[in-house]
Amino acid sequence: MAIALVIGDGGWGTALAMALHRSGHTVRLWSAFPAYAEELARTRRNRKFLPDVEIPAAILIGSEVASLAGGASLVVSAVPTSYLRSVWHRIAAYIPAGAVVVSASKGIEQPALKLPSEIIREVVPGARIAVLSGPSHADEVARALPTSVVASAHDADSAIEVQRAFADPTFRVYTSPDPVGVELAGALKNVIAIACGISDGLGFGDNTRAALITRGMAEIARLGMARGARRETFSGLAGIGDLIVTATSRLSRNHELGFRLGRGEALEAIVRSTEMVAEGVPTARSAVALARSLSVELPITEQVHAILYEGRTPAEGVRALLERPRRPEDERPV
Amino acid sequence: MAIALVIGDGGWGTALAMALHRSGHTVRLWSAFPAYAEELARTRRNRKFLPDVEIPAAILIGSEVASLAGGASLVVSAVPTSYLRSVWHRIAAYIPAGAVVVSASKGIEQPALKLPSEIIREVVPGARIAVLSGPSHADEVARALPTSVVASAHDADSAIEVQRAFADPTFRVYTSPDPVGVELAGALKNVIAIACGISDGLGFGDNTRAALITRGMAEIARLGMARGARRETFSGLAGIGDLIVTATSRLSRNHELGFRLGRGEALEAIVRSTEMVAEGVPTARSAVALARSLSVELPITEQVHAILYEGRTPAEGVRALLERPRRPEDERPV
Repeated sequence: MAIALVIGDGGWGTALAMALHRSGHTVRLWSAFPAYAEELARTRRNRKFLPDVEIPAAILIGSEVASLAGGASLVVSAVPTSYLRSVWHRIAAYIPAGAVVVSASKGIEQPALKLPSEIIREVVPGARIAVLSGPSHADEVARALPTSVVASAHDADSAIEVQRAFADPTFRVYTSPDPVGVELAGALKNVIAIACGISDGLGFGDNTRAALITRGMAEIARLGMARGARRETFSGLAGIGDLIVTATSRLSRNHELGFRLGRGEALEAIVRSTEMVAEGVPTARSAVALARSLSVELPITEQVHAILYEGRTPAEGVRALLERPRRPEDERPV
Repeated sequence: MAIALVIGDGGWGTALAMALHRSGHTVRLWSAFPAYAEELARTRRNRKFLPDVEIPAAILIGSEVASLAGGASLVVSAVPTSYLRSVWHRIAAYIPAGAVVVSASKGIEQPALKLPSEIIREVVPGARIAVLSGPSHADEVARALPTSVVASAHDADSAIEVQRAFADPTFRVYTSPDPVGVELAGALKNVIAIACGISDGLGFGDNTRAALITRGMAEIARLGMARGARRETFSGLAGIGDLIVTATSRLSRNHELGFRLGRGEALEAIVRSTEMVAEGVPTARSAVALARSLSVELPITEQVHAILYEGRTPAEGVRALLERPRRPEDERPV
């Protein structure tokens, strides 16, 4: 059986380890923290990040990457973007040459505006890297509810290898040749999810939320295309599909944060009262910086940024959006 | 003040009449039924189709089209597709020459597979016609919750005239040059909404539903492009935006019908127990016929069709989808 190494003890790493186990892999799950690795291995339960599912006994869990990495042909990297560079500096020497690395992180590194796969490539210049993204609550993947995602790489072989690795029918992998688009969409959608939460918190309806989702993905696509991504990616699973899940679900931290802002709570109070970080908060900064560097307008993202960082009220942000001049829907030069 | 005539006493016609009233029009609302027109005019409440909102006194409501149509520069047609041809035969002679007709119906006429604007054009060959669509529950439009839609016409002037007519900031109209794409998306999305309801009824999660929405719009786009529509339309408000609202909301009859199918009820029992018709049921037939005539594959629509009309169980339909061969996400020749 092929050996798969999963880097990261969060909910997403745990769920992907379980999907690879169902696909017939010998799976090893690495945690950066020896005590938590021991707890996971002993209790078969990820108390902090995925408490409701039992981790199969066949998944080996530990914190010694030197021993876990041996023989792995697939390495799944599921680490928060802010820790990604330091984790990869720590583990890079142990990754078998020729293994396909699957980057499953979502975010943009500050302040250099690097995407997760770009960070890994800087640390391991010769690596074969694919990115994996799509509408995928970890909890539902762990429970084998049908899920469809995209594996994307500059070289088609790596993407197809990832597609084949996930052979379980409940976890369908489509391939794509646009990793930049996939990663940008995965990061930037969290800001639009905050906007949708704000709208819901202000008491607006389904019409408003659907318009924010649609126009939000249109502005993400404009930014992505300015960075060389393909327009089609943003209409796909890693684009609009992922945004739909993030912006309409109660399980989303970004939507929840926006909802509480819309109800009138202050950002500091919300952040202080929750354990997990809503990634859209730092990503709003990265997105606005990226948009300025590429001369792209992001009307919704800019309003979220102003609400988060410049003291604009949610009601003022909405008013600014509603009063914009009327336009053709698709202004891309044809 | 410009005069607007709204054809149709349903929820959508009533809501659009209210939006035009807010934009400063003199609005007249026509019902085909004198007794119901009298009730609406007297009670200022659309008991059957939009019971929770009060219709402003300034909106004139009646059933005599000859008197109502005089001087109208904008005519909004909001009639179910199955009655559209007969209604237009009845009113065509009274529509002022030069008025812009806004078609707001969603559906495909059986058995000739005609779109609403095509039906109107056959009855009134010289008319200036635009189509209006997007994520827009009538109830939310009536309550002035922020809503964004698309007005589309082959000639840009008609679309811009519709955009200007709706000057209220809570009802934003974007223009588009692709009425065929807008109308196809509006009709076919109801079938995908049934699929999402089935998935929810079977107990699947947010991941599955988001994948059905995304892959569903991809198959609608393939069909649309084969009929000459623009790909961008399906990523827009009339495409994915409208589908999101229809497929994720409890207010949607199509989702509700699918949900009950997924829970194991028979189609006949569901149809018998509800007053309103879920338009996706006849549209599934039209869509499959259209797909065959254009040699386009619609995997999700075909499963819904088989569940509705060929005795396939929802579980068998899902299994057939999950067992399809793995593919690139975007198979359009680049």
